[in-house]
Amino acid sequence: MNINDITNVIKDTGRSMEKAAMDKIDGKTKPAGSLGTLELIAVKMCMIRNSLTPNAENKALFVFAGDHGITREGVSAYPQEVTSQMVMNFMRGGAAINVLCRQGLIGLHVIDMGVNHVFGKDAGITVRKIAMGTKNFLMEAAMERPEAEESVLAGYEIVDERIRKDGLEIIGVGDMGIGNTASSSAIISAALGIGAEETTWRGTGIDDESLKKKIRVIDESIKLHGPDPADAIDILSKVGGFEIGGMAGGVLAAAANGIPVVLDGIISCAAGLLANILDPRSSGYMFAAHRSVEKGQAHALGALGLVPILDLGMRLGEGTGAALAMGIIDASCRIMTEMASFSEAGVSGKK
Amino acid sequence: MNINDITNVIKDTGRSMEKAAMDKIDGKTKPAGSLGTLELIAVKMCMIRNSLTPNAENKALFVFAGDHGITREGVSAYPQEVTSQMVMNFMRGGAAINVLCRQGLIGLHVIDMGVNHVFGKDAGITVRKIAMGTKNFLMEAAMERPEAEESVLAGYEIVDERIRKDGLEIIGVGDMGIGNTASSSAIISAALGIGAEETTWRGTGIDDESLKKKIRVIDESIKLHGPDPADAIDILSKVGGFEIGGMAGGVLAAAANGIPVVLDGIISCAAGLLANILDPRSSGYMFAAHRSVEKGQAHALGALGLVPILDLGMRLGEGTGAALAMGIIDASCRIMTEMASFSEAGVSGKK
Repeated sequence: MNINDITNVIKDTGRSMEKAAMDKIDGKTKPAGSLGTLELIAVKMCMIRNSLTPNAENKALFVFAGDHGITREGVSAYPQEVTSQMVMNFMRGGAAINVLCRQGLIGLHVIDMGVNHVFGKDAGITVRKIAMGTKNFLMEAAMERPEAEESVLAGYEIVDERIRKDGLEIIGVGDMGIGNTASSSAIISAALGIGAEETTWRGTGIDDESLKKKIRVIDESIKLHGPDPADAIDILSKVGGFEIGGMAGGVLAAAANGIPVVLDGIISCAAGLLANILDPRSSGYMFAAHRSVEKGQAHALGALGLVPILDLGMRLGEGTGAALAMGIIDASCRIMTEMASFSEAGVSGKK
Repeated sequence: MNINDITNVIKDTGRSMEKAAMDKIDGKTKPAGSLGTLELIAVKMCMIRNSLTPNAENKALFVFAGDHGITREGVSAYPQEVTSQMVMNFMRGGAAINVLCRQGLIGLHVIDMGVNHVFGKDAGITVRKIAMGTKNFLMEAAMERPEAEESVLAGYEIVDERIRKDGLEIIGVGDMGIGNTASSSAIISAALGIGAEETTWRGTGIDDESLKKKIRVIDESIKLHGPDPADAIDILSKVGGFEIGGMAGGVLAAAANGIPVVLDGIISCAAGLLANILDPRSSGYMFAAHRSVEKGQAHALGALGLVPILDLGMRLGEGTGAALAMGIIDASCRIMTEMASFSEAGVSGKK
């Protein structure tokens, strides 16, 4: 299997469904347009599912984890071992994403794409480790090109299998990886040709001096490697991360299966951008969960043509924003499928 | 029972809990502040419940319905009979609020405070009808002062009983009443001393000409009646509605029972403003669900010191925004109660 095998399967979302979906939602017992964003989501869901009765009840969230050699440059406020410690926290159910998935009745899958730690076989983690973390991309490419392809394909296969076996109707993608905001800002800068000052922020909470260094590291790395903005695998191999490749594959799996995928913060939006370079039809299947505090995310969302559903000042990652937004998307589908029309309910229309 | 009996019971929210709640949330396995608004909500919930383990799982939404004599001035896009038709739609489960309450596992209670229709005994509606709709407040007071008091007390009693009997942990208030954005804008203008142009918008969707008329009607009505901004019952009787009085009573019932109340759009925010005039401690128990398209809502929220959780371009009412926001508040409580701390999870702290 290679990436062309995936993109050959992805179809455009159903433009032909748009008018009928808008007519259906306008016939519901409410003033036209009065449910705002819920109506836009409901119409997009009809297009994605090619159906006037879309569902987003059967939900799963995929958290991809990996370590980053760039942490050696002091771009994160936390030490690298926090990646594996947090993965163990996920498996014990104590992290924010566990709490939000339990509340939202969302299945949670954790995938080790390249954490610098060997987890026990009974840890409950899906292990598709490409390497024990990326290399320091200020010095050399983060990974080899075949490794970059492998990470995307692995993410695709894992998510594709779950969508098919579990009959998932919506998925979200989340991340864990100390140093991965640096990698994501670099991907967004490389893909969109904008300087790191525009795409880089404080991650887990670095100070002014570290932020300046982080921006410089990213600008220098892009200058060193000269990634091709039209070649997602080139960008991923030079400044990316294994978990980001996995997330891009997960996004493509949703699009290939004709179901929606909810992006979370800057890391998943960088992955979404890579997926969209691999196949521009894939953005039709994406929702932006929330406006992240990480400023680079806005550039990625702009390029993908996505408007965030929530704006809660969040910057945690793990898929936490995606978990919350899935509830809103589910609600929007139910409005489309369950709500009565004026004629069904015998309610008078506008004067 | 009178309104003083209620306000004598309401306590300040637990300021003493604030520091301990902030310390607790800062110890959770996440960068400090990275859950943004969820953290602010969690801390406020600790203060409201006077507990470091608050819950908002047992939820109910109260939709108060009433008709408005001001509709005779052509201030709404829909005919008055839509109020009773929509109440019937609620009882059959076909309205937007039914869909969202089912999804959010929120109990739904519909109260007829003054609909111009007599519902059958088997309709499942709680009937506390004060009159068959208000009078046209451009010509005369919307209701008598004792009727205004009665509406607040009725709302209080209904909600208070359900909170106690059902052990509710959070409530929302919603509305149904053709013409009630006009009444709500008038209440906000009267309470805050600002002209109708600043508080009035299109309601269910009136055109430019009708909007101009609506603004003029409200300004003239306030000039005619001269409601006392410090006297909520005076404002309610002169330009209010029976369902708005009921909602204000419901808000006070939440505060008196020490549980949070989620305001929805402009109508419930006008009711919240009245409740806060009756007892300024009550705003400590309020959450603002969402930013409504109705511009007067922002003035009410500003006066109450509330920031909306969601901004989804909604303007439907019924409590639809409150239903969605309750899920976010529930999630915030679970973050506080269920998420592991750094020490519990053995995760390294900041470098």
